[in-house]
Amino acid sequence: MKFLFEILKQNSVSGDESKTSEFILKYIAQRKKRWKVLPEIYSGEDFHDCILLKFGEPRTAVFAHIDTIGFMSRYNNQLISIGGPEIIEGTSLVGEDSLGEISCKLAGDENNISHDFPRGIDPGTRLSFAQNIRIDEEFIQAAYLDNRLGVYSALELCENISDGWVVFTTYEEHGGGSMPFLLKFIQETAPVKQALISDITWITEGVQFHQGVVISIRDKFIPRKKFIDKIIRLAKESGIPFQLEVEEYGGSDGREVQFSPYAIDWCFIGAAEENVHSPDEKVSLSDFEAMLKIYPYLLERL
Amino acid sequence: MKFLFEILKQNSVSGDESKTSEFILKYIAQRKKRWKVLPEIYSGEDFHDCILLKFGEPRTAVFAHIDTIGFMSRYNNQLISIGGPEIIEGTSLVGEDSLGEISCKLAGDENNISHDFPRGIDPGTRLSFAQNIRIDEEFIQAAYLDNRLGVYSALELCENISDGWVVFTTYEEHGGGSMPFLLKFIQETAPVKQALISDITWITEGVQFHQGVVISIRDKFIPRKKFIDKIIRLAKESGIPFQLEVEEYGGSDGREVQFSPYAIDWCFIGAAEENVHSPDEKVSLSDFEAMLKIYPYLLERL
Amino acid sequence: MKFLFEILKQNSVSGDESKTSEFILKYIAQRKKRWKVLPEIYSGEDFHDCILLKFGEPRTAVFAHIDTIGFMSRYNNQLISIGGPEIIEGTSLVGEDSLGEISCKLAGDENNISHDFPRGIDPGTRLSFAQNIRIDEEFIQAAYLDNRLGVYSALELCENISDGWVVFTTYEEHGGGSMPFLLKFIQETAPVKQALISDITWITEGVQFHQGVVISIRDKFIPRKKFIDKIIRLAKESGIPFQLEVEEYGGSDGREVQFSPYAIDWCFIGAAEENVHSPDEKVSLSDFEAMLKIYPYLLERL
Repeated sequence: MKFLFEILKQNSVSGDESKTSEFILKYIAQRKKRWKVLPEIYSGEDFHDCILLKFGEPRTAVFAHIDTIGFMSRYNNQLISIGGPEIIEGTSLVGEDSLGEISCKLAGDENNISHDFPRGIDPGTRLSFAQNIRIDEEFIQAAYLDNRLGVYSALELCENISDGWVVFTTYEEHGGGSMPFLLKFIQETAPVKQALISDITWITEGVQFHQGVVISIRDKFIPRKKFIDKIIRLAKESGIPFQLEVEEYGGSDGREVQFSPYAIDWCFIGAAEENVHSPDEKVSLSDFEAMLKIYPYLLERL
Repeated sequence: MKFLFEILKQNSVSGDESKTSEFILKYIAQRKKRWKVLPEIYSGEDFHDCILLKFGEPRTAVFAHIDTIGFMSRYNNQLISIGGPEIIEGTSLVGEDSLGEISCKLAGDENNISHDFPRGIDPGTRLSFAQNIRIDEEFIQAAYLDNRLGVYSALELCENISDGWVVFTTYEEHGGGSMPFLLKFIQETAPVKQALISDITWITEGVQFHQGVVISIRDKFIPRKKFIDKIIRLAKESGIPFQLEVEEYGGSDGREVQFSPYAIDWCFIGAAEENVHSPDEKVSLSDFEAMLKIYPYLLERL
Repeated sequence: MKFLFEILKQNSVSGDESKTSEFILKYIAQRKKRWKVLPEIYSGEDFHDCILLKFGEPRTAVFAHIDTIGFMSRYNNQLISIGGPEIIEGTSLVGEDSLGEISCKLAGDENNISHDFPRGIDPGTRLSFAQNIRIDEEFIQAAYLDNRLGVYSALELCENISDGWVVFTTYEEHGGGSMPFLLKFIQETAPVKQALISDITWITEGVQFHQGVVISIRDKFIPRKKFIDKIIRLAKESGIPFQLEVEEYGGSDGREVQFSPYAIDWCFIGAAEENVHSPDEKVSLSDFEAMLKIYPYLLERL
């Protein structure tokens, strides 16, 4: 879990993912010798701050976004949202601009967000929730579990995967935009027909803590029934605890698979959290464990 | 019209079009020997549940979506929409889940839709309007005229077409997503510069029953004037009754032609209906006849 | 400035850009012999009404949209919007339909726009704001400075550019749709990794007249920080007056670069205006001058 703590402390608000990207690349460089299969690694300026790992002969691609929601300073002491952060007065925010480190508190409401930093902040500066990781026997609670847990799960998958793409994407929280060029590269390099989205979803009246990893039948967008049925069948066989989600709203990198110029089936699979997009995102450890288990199981069989 | 009745009775709510796709493929297999030109047929898993027919040397592609709006069961007795169905209390719905056939009534309103089926329904189960086809001398009335009439019109076109693509698409009612890969395949196989959308539009203050097939100058999206002018000129020469539509809202597969990475002109052409997205969609038979006539006329001359 | 006056008098509401496209092509044909580098010119039906100029060996592409907002006649005396024009009762509108020239006044409000032309107007006819150009020592004021100034700036850039694409796009005001095929053509012909959007933005509490050309850190969409940082660094070195924009709303052709299947960085750079999308758009001449200066400076150094 050391690595999980480390990436939870990284800031990478959408559009500024370069440091987290480098951090993940370093981790990959250290670990890859112990992985079952040595992947081909694609990264660098041609891929903006995304990373693609190609293992063996891929049939399926797994996508985990490395960006987070956050805030951007505007003029005077104003802030505007990046992605859809919860606006809670008094929340601690951190960042850095040309004059140095920033630590301040959020003020105002959704229509008028501001900060209380004594000096002005350079316009365009990104601010993140101050990190505060809490773990007990049942839960992990922190900012940015969405999607640090998805990233962690994708990296754990790397340990044992034989065939598949593992892809770290950017901008997801703010409308996306890296998926189209990643999918093009994948399909022109070693094409797949299946995609899994390693990301965190929401606790709702039908999705509860400790009931297993969530397989999403739909959010705002609707994957093809044939593929979802296949995944549910495999999940049942696996014995790994899972629950089904049927939601009307929300989106993920899956949206961009759906609207891509490739006939690729997709499904969102991940643990559910409470206090979404707040500094207090909360995930059941047993649900997260089921998430960690189901990916290798599915990648082998899909 | 026998085939029209048959496809009106098929359920294929967005994301679950495989049975209707197979049904259309069977029809094509039976009929194609009598068609003027034998098409190349592209279908199967590489195309999800879409079907492409290539006749001769295409200059134009015709698109008809085979999915319908409907509902999906959520948790407890909740339903959520697929596409934008009319929410009318008491509407009869049908479907099937792991426990067998379902027949129930819709309850609640747009913010809280539910069903009255005595037992729970598997989450993620699709429900359709119970079909009730009514025909008299002037009108046809049924659920899913949008877009069974467009599909029927496209299949009628197959009888006499010399050159062109006829394409059956999926997901259209819920945001689309098959058009991008279909367009890519078309442009890499036998590219076109023109697209017609064979679909059903709305009766409004400017679009009336019995005034002919509708040529749409715009909906939410705006095709290029040069192409629309050309179609209107041909429609005038044809003597086939038509009317012009200018709407601010609504969309079709044309939207995805507009935003595709290909310079393809597009135009929506189809009959208009009352009681849109309800079990009582109503179309004038003479408007539908004009729709059936204008497609072969245009395909030959565009 | 003669050419600026001439293009300000051209009508080219989204979807009907062919005359303005021809006009710009004529201008290019006349001027290109005096340009430092003779570009390859791509235009005609394969590019709808867009124009691409390839100079030398491009590293960066500059995009300027040639369409404008406006209105379309619906049924009776109704109008609907194209793009998002300001609805100001009494505004003079001009256009042309099958019966001849039209000059009328706008009536009603956003929910119910109409015209007072004594006869009916053909459904689907485009109407533009009547042009009224006003210049004094500090300001230019007219309809459609957005984006005639961006087009003018892109054409001025052609005088001295050595390497780069200069591209004139269509439909931008109404959701876009030409960028995808233009980007595909560019990337398959002479690919770039950088894009600049030559367009006009808004005066706000943080963007003021006479403070220089605007470099946009974000609008509704967020370009990659690394690229924006590079541009700001170059702008500082240039000594050309500039100001930074951080907005939550608004979009441009940059949006379609972001969502394209190519890893291309983008940035919006242009003067700011008051009275956006009205007949009285107002731009500071010194801001516009800074816009004209920064493009050649950046194109050489990016």
